Amino acid sequence: MKSDIILLGHGSGGKLSHQLLDDIIIPALSGIAQSEQNDAAILARPDGRLAFTTDSYVVDPIFFPGGCIGDLAINGTVNDLAMAGAKPLAISVGLILEEGLPVSDLEEILQAMRQAADKVGVNIVTGDTKVVPRGKADKIFINTSGVGVIEHELTICGSGARPGDKIIINGTVGDHGMAVLASREGLELESTIESDCAELHSLVEAMLAVGKEDIHVLRDPTRGGVATTLKEIALQSQMDIELVESAIPVNDNVGGACAILGLDPLFVANEGKLLAVVAAEKAEQILAAMQEQPTGKDASIIGTVINKGAGRLSLETVIGGKRSVEMLAGEQLPRIC
Amino acid sequence: MKSDIILLGHGSGGKLSHQLLDDIIIPALSGIAQSEQNDAAILARPDGRLAFTTDSYVVDPIFFPGGCIGDLAINGTVNDLAMAGAKPLAISVGLILEEGLPVSDLEEILQAMRQAADKVGVNIVTGDTKVVPRGKADKIFINTSGVGVIEHELTICGSGARPGDKIIINGTVGDHGMAVLASREGLELESTIESDCAELHSLVEAMLAVGKEDIHVLRDPTRGGVATTLKEIALQSQMDIELVESAIPVNDNVGGACAILGLDPLFVANEGKLLAVVAAEKAEQILAAMQEQPTGKDASIIGTVINKGAGRLSLETVIGGKRSVEMLAGEQLPRIC
Repeated sequence: MKSDIILLGHGSGGKLSHQLLDDIIIPALSGIAQSEQNDAAILARPDGRLAFTTDSYVVDPIFFPGGCIGDLAINGTVNDLAMAGAKPLAISVGLILEEGLPVSDLEEILQAMRQAADKVGVNIVTGDTKVVPRGKADKIFINTSGVGVIEHELTICGSGARPGDKIIINGTVGDHGMAVLASREGLELESTIESDCAELHSLVEAMLAVGKEDIHVLRDPTRGGVATTLKEIALQSQMDIELVESAIPVNDNVGGACAILGLDPLFVANEGKLLAVVAAEKAEQILAAMQEQPTGKDASIIGTVINKGAGRLSLETVIGGKRSVEMLAGEQLPRIC
Repeated sequence: MKSDIILLGHGSGGKLSHQLLDDIIIPALSGIAQSEQNDAAILARPDGRLAFTTDSYVVDPIFFPGGCIGDLAINGTVNDLAMAGAKPLAISVGLILEEGLPVSDLEEILQAMRQAADKVGVNIVTGDTKVVPRGKADKIFINTSGVGVIEHELTICGSGARPGDKIIINGTVGDHGMAVLASREGLELESTIESDCAELHSLVEAMLAVGKEDIHVLRDPTRGGVATTLKEIALQSQMDIELVESAIPVNDNVGGACAILGLDPLFVANEGKLLAVVAAEKAEQILAAMQEQPTGKDASIIGTVINKGAGRLSLETVIGGKRSVEMLAGEQLPRIC
C-alpha cells in the first residue's frame, strides 16, 4: 500500500505520517528510534556560548550540478554557525512537501542531507514535515536551524573590521548562482558550471588555529554575492573598503556566462565561500593555512579596509579605474538558495 | 518607492531585502540593531541541558478566529519546548513569502509573533526571509525553531508512562482544528468556534512546581489530535491505556460541528492543549494546580494507564461500550497548522 509520491495524508500527523517518518525520513536523517522521538531533542549542557541560526531553502531546480537542495540546506546552516566561530552541535530539519513529490526525489535529498551532516560530524536531532496541496508549494522547501558551541573567547562579527585589515576570500566567486541559473534555464555552455556548495567549518577551524584574535569578521557571501556582503560589513563596521578586481578569482566558465548574460560575478551567490577580514600582519599566515585546505586552495587577498568612514565599498577595476559598489538592487537571480 | 506587496526582490539578499528587514521585520520581531546582525545569534552558556525543536506552519487560512499563523508559530514551538520541561531561551523565524503577499498582512502576523513571544519572555534572535514567485507557495509559510534550557534533572518523555498513571488534559478538545476548518470552508455556525492557540509554558511551570518527578509524560495533541498522541505514548511506553469518553471536555459548538461533518473530536488538532501522564497518587494535586491557571481551568482526568502491553488505546464510550482507538488514518483536515 506504499505510495511512490507524497500524499496529503503524509502530513496528517496520523498513520501515513508515521509511516513516512519511520520508513524514510528517520532512517535517512537520524536513526533515532521511535521510542526516543519526542517534541524536542535534548542536548547535554554545552561547554561554551551558543550560536543559533536558521535558513529556509527554496532553490529551483532542487537538483543542480554540484549539489541539491539537501546538502545545500545542511552546509548553509553549518556555515552560518562557522561564521560565528562555532562548532555545529545539532541541526533541525523542517520539510514542506508539495503533494505529488516523488518519494525517490525525497529520498535522494535526505541522503544528501545526511552525508553533508556526517561530513562535519553534526547530528540531525529534531524535525517536522508538512504537506501542502499541489500548486501550493514548489516540490520541496527545507528549513534547517542549527545550534553550535563557541569553545573560545573570540568575538567574530560583522562590526569587527579595522583600518588596515585585509579581505580574504577562499576561492572563486559566483559558481553556485551561475550553476543554478544555467541548470534552471537550460543554458548550453562549453563546460558545465558546478556549484561550490561545501561546508566551511573545517576551513574556519584551520583559520582559527593560526589566526585567533586577528580574525575580525567572517561571513559567507550567499544571496547578493561578495559585493553585497562586503557592503554590509563596511556599513556595520563603519569602515571604507577597497577591492582589487584583478585579485578576485573567477572561473572562466562563470566569467563567460556572466558576460553573456550581463551579470556581475561580484553579485552572484556562493555556497562554499567565506570572506574573512583579518589583521594585516597575520594575513599571509592565515592565507597560507587556508590554501592547505580543500575549500581554500584558491584563496586570495582581494582587498583592504582603508579607513573609518561611512561604509563605502569601492573597486579598483582591471583597467585601472575606481568605481563605487552598492548592494544588489532588485532581484537578479531568484531562488538560488 | 515602497511597495504595498511583497516583491521577488525582497528575497534577493540585496537592497530590497535590507529595506524589508530594517523597516518591517526587525523592528517588529526583535529590535536587534543592524550593526548587531550576524549569520548566527550568540547566546550565553545555558545553565542546564538544552531542548531543541522545530516546526513549520502552513495553516490555511492564515488568519482564523482566535489567532493567526504568527502566534500559532510562536506558541507551537514554545509548547514543544515546554513538553520537555524546558524554559524557552531563544526562537528563530524562517519566513517563506509568496510574491504578492500584502505587506499589511505580513505586519499583522509579525506583531502577533512578537506579542506571543513577549508573553512568555522569549526573544526572537535570528531569522531568514525567502520570497518565491506567485503560485509557488501559499501566501506565507513560517518555520520557528526553539532552544530551551532544562533547569532540573527530571526526564519527561513519551516512553515514561507507568501502570496506574492517570491521563490529564488541560481543557476542551478539537477547538483549533474546527476553528480553522470552519473559517476555511465558511461554515455558518450558531456561534463562532475559536482556536485554543495558547502558550503552555506557564501551565507546565505550575505543574512542575507541584508534580516534579511524578510527571512522567507531557505532550501536546496537535495534528492527529488526542487519540493519535495518546496512541503514540502507548506505543512508546509499551503500555495499554484506557480513556473515559464522558470525562473528555468538548465545547458544545465543536461537538455539534464535528457531528454534522462526521468528524471525531478526539482526532481533531489542538494548539493550546497538553496531555500529562502522571503518578496516580499525585494526580489530584497536579489537576488542582492546573485548574488555577488560565489555560488549565477546564482540566480533567480522562483516563488511566492500565498495564504493560502492546500499546493498545481503548475508549469506554458514553453508552458504556468499549472500543479500540487507532491513529488517525488518511488526511482528515489538511493544513490546520
